[in-house]
Amino acid sequence: MGVEGEKVGRTRSGGRAARRQARCRPAIIQMPYITRRIPLTEVLSDEGLEIIENNAEIILEEIGIEFHDDEEALAIWREAGADVQGTRVRLPRGLARSLIKTAPETFIQHARNSVRSVQIGGDAMVFSPVYGPPFVRDLDGGRRYATIEDFRNFVKLAYMTPSLHHSGGTLCEPVDIAVNKRHLDMVYSHIRYSDKPFMGSVTAPQRAEDSVAMARLLFGDDLVAENCVLINLINANSPMVWDATMLGALKVYARAGQACVISPFILAGAMSPVTVAGTLAQLLAEAMSGMAFTQLVRPGAPVVFGTFASSISMQSGAPTFGTPEPALVLFAAAQLARRLGVPFRSGGSLCGSKLPDAQAAYESAQTLLPGVLSGVNFMLHSAGWLEGGLVSSYEKFVMDGDQLGMMQALAGGIDLSENGQAMDAVREVGPGNHFLGCAHTQANFQTAFYRSSIADNNSLEQWEEDGSKDAAMRANGIFKKMLAEFEAPALDPAIDEALTAFITNKKNSMPDALE
Amino acid sequence: MGVEGEKVGRTRSGGRAARRQARCRPAIIQMPYITRRIPLTEVLSDEGLEIIENNAEIILEEIGIEFHDDEEALAIWREAGADVQGTRVRLPRGLARSLIKTAPETFIQHARNSVRSVQIGGDAMVFSPVYGPPFVRDLDGGRRYATIEDFRNFVKLAYMTPSLHHSGGTLCEPVDIAVNKRHLDMVYSHIRYSDKPFMGSVTAPQRAEDSVAMARLLFGDDLVAENCVLINLINANSPMVWDATMLGALKVYARAGQACVISPFILAGAMSPVTVAGTLAQLLAEAMSGMAFTQLVRPGAPVVFGTFASSISMQSGAPTFGTPEPALVLFAAAQLARRLGVPFRSGGSLCGSKLPDAQAAYESAQTLLPGVLSGVNFMLHSAGWLEGGLVSSYEKFVMDGDQLGMMQALAGGIDLSENGQAMDAVREVGPGNHFLGCAHTQANFQTAFYRSSIADNNSLEQWEEDGSKDAAMRANGIFKKMLAEFEAPALDPAIDEALTAFITNKKNSMPDALE
Repeated sequence: MGVEGEKVGRTRSGGRAARRQARCRPAIIQMPYITRRIPLTEVLSDEGLEIIENNAEIILEEIGIEFHDDEEALAIWREAGADVQGTRVRLPRGLARSLIKTAPETFIQHARNSVRSVQIGGDAMVFSPVYGPPFVRDLDGGRRYATIEDFRNFVKLAYMTPSLHHSGGTLCEPVDIAVNKRHLDMVYSHIRYSDKPFMGSVTAPQRAEDSVAMARLLFGDDLVAENCVLINLINANSPMVWDATMLGALKVYARAGQACVISPFILAGAMSPVTVAGTLAQLLAEAMSGMAFTQLVRPGAPVVFGTFASSISMQSGAPTFGTPEPALVLFAAAQLARRLGVPFRSGGSLCGSKLPDAQAAYESAQTLLPGVLSGVNFMLHSAGWLEGGLVSSYEKFVMDGDQLGMMQALAGGIDLSENGQAMDAVREVGPGNHFLGCAHTQANFQTAFYRSSIADNNSLEQWEEDGSKDAAMRANGIFKKMLAEFEAPALDPAIDEALTAFITNKKNSMPDALE
Repeated sequence: MGVEGEKVGRTRSGGRAARRQARCRPAIIQMPYITRRIPLTEVLSDEGLEIIENNAEIILEEIGIEFHDDEEALAIWREAGADVQGTRVRLPRGLARSLIKTAPETFIQHARNSVRSVQIGGDAMVFSPVYGPPFVRDLDGGRRYATIEDFRNFVKLAYMTPSLHHSGGTLCEPVDIAVNKRHLDMVYSHIRYSDKPFMGSVTAPQRAEDSVAMARLLFGDDLVAENCVLINLINANSPMVWDATMLGALKVYARAGQACVISPFILAGAMSPVTVAGTLAQLLAEAMSGMAFTQLVRPGAPVVFGTFASSISMQSGAPTFGTPEPALVLFAAAQLARRLGVPFRSGGSLCGSKLPDAQAAYESAQTLLPGVLSGVNFMLHSAGWLEGGLVSSYEKFVMDGDQLGMMQALAGGIDLSENGQAMDAVREVGPGNHFLGCAHTQANFQTAFYRSSIADNNSLEQWEEDGSKDAAMRANGIFKKMLAEFEAPALDPAIDEALTAFITNKKNSMPDALE
């Protein structure tokens, strides 16, 4: 059972019982991707959703979307019946929605360890770690530029976090490697130090090609030709612009039958209107234009309706997180995605705080839980995000991982089996007594409640004796212990050799470049 | 408009603009109680709810509930048709549910300032602060026993927190005043330093009588006779026991037409079965027995279905908070309350952490947001709770208050007016430009997004220049500033004199006592 396995798994990262377990069980316990058993939270009525959808069609038809520096894209749109004037593409009402119909409602992203393959869409929910920060932070070294060593560390931590179902993509930017070569080391690290599914590079079409080529070496040409093995983040330049880099990567992945997450990246108030309903209409138009384009490139290519939407401080212009307006956007955008019949990406453990403190936790929880309840299918940034996405935090990574385990239990809903109803226990104990020793409790206590790896619930005296540590200080000890105990999953040496040779050849074929 | 007022109000506790505002506006802006405009989140189907309800009826009929040391209560039950054996009261199937039908679905609790009166039940949601801790903590003095000075401080902070609609009850235990007299000072402090609605004493029937007497001096006999002016926390001794203290207070309040919050107090695994469904059946049986009893005492007396349910660590026995199982209990209990047609109390910003750190914030948010989404009507402990309810935290009080403001905005839902849709802005700005300067943004930016009083979203450089403070350190400065700026709302001197005389007489009429 999912929830049960999760509880056993969670204990691995701390505690005496965990160490005992670890000794007799070499492989770590991983959670399967979540299959939701609780209803969805929805904030808009059908009438409200129709207003947003109508406004999105107006944007697509009257204002249009820019497709920059990509003549092929413009030709594809012309061919499809769009009104193309310069780089402005206007879509007749209904065209985008009609094109999106060929996209699958759900698909499987394969992992090299097939038990880690994940379903994207439907009742499934997949947690993937932070993506993109140029900096890392921990309590020991403070904030500093990320390196490939940091990148490998985060791959290892994601691999060892049972509630992360995915290895993610750019866990941090390894700035010690040339921009035109680091994608090779990143993709290789995901393959070498994890066996969970992962993401490809999108920073140039050639790097997307390299990602697909490495996936072919790992999975074999036949499997890649017929299946999704890479999921890839295609961001819009909101408002209403697609650039050549993203369009190029999109075309590579869609043609290879790999998944694109089409994500408007919106700080409302700057890149969209300063209201929730206005932001929703714009992001729906942007997402529909990108998703429709994937289906023109290859009908049936897996595609995900993505949104990253937060707001800015109207005083300072700084991005803000965990506030109510982005939560409302998230809830409603999930509804819009379901009406299009495509998987949805959003959420994460987003925060603006500089430290893994109370601000970070409030903001993260106020993004994470709305994401879970709204029905997000692929949740990027679900662990480790700090300082508005500038920083991957080691301590926050394990703190968020603990929260993800809780979300997995929550999504499992209420067990209404006879054992779950526990009427025997109520009869046995009766008024005025306690349940600690009753037969039902004895039979269930090991797996009954989610066991946090971070929380300290000891007495004040015990906590003081343990050093009066706050949550971040405890998380610091936990991530170091995890890295010390890391063991890489086995990888076929022939595949490893082929990948290493590919990377060496690629790196030798070009000089280092800064972009 | 609620959301708008809230945003203006929130700024009062920090920032230059706030100080400017404060100078030209002597009275603080308060938020009205919340009127929910988003749908409810529900986790159980009708079929699931019927299973729980059936199990609760089995508990009431076959196992029964203990009513301790209160012959009158037993006589009332006998008269009502219950099977009373010793102190065990067994209720024929359907009796409790039938008795509860006379309870109002919603009622108004009056405040001495009538604009602060609150609706309890229906679409309304009322936030009330922490209740019960014997200790307080702040960054300066650490953890220490609470005093009446602390109590007054928390009344003042609750008064100045726009998103707290209620002054609460035992904000902390003033242990420097005799147990048999401190209720007089507590009730007086709520009246003197706030004009929001408040709670009466339940620690002895006589203290409940004193609370009602003081309410009569404040509101006048006529108003109190016909209206609810006190809401009072009646805890069960779970499992399935009501004690004489609580029954005595219940009878005083119900007879006076004042509201009782009938609350099973459950740490699942110890005071209830170690499963969610088992805990739900037991707490429903307990709550139904108490609510039905209020209606036997006085049909139509206002009553609230309360629940405080968390779980214990099955390793250490310590209570735990913010975990998924209590959230599931909360969601489902709210559904059960709605099916009974009574208001619901639960939730709060609960946590087990010793410090206002990331653990405190994650756990609090993971209780607060489920409470808001489940449809809690009266949320006790919504600000200031720390260390499993042993501590009222000054810093956490203001941090939680900020979160409550966000919840108020979230519950307001999405503005679908023409201004909310913002299509003019999208047309004006168009692809590739930014929205900061457009007419719609200029017209709306002051009230567009919730503005946190605690979060720091400045650049790293600015944040470092400001002292590299974490959220708790910033909250420390904020609560001190609030207390320094506090001005008590006006109180009729004749009423003040009458209350003071009542208290002096009462105190002189008895020696100090330890319980």
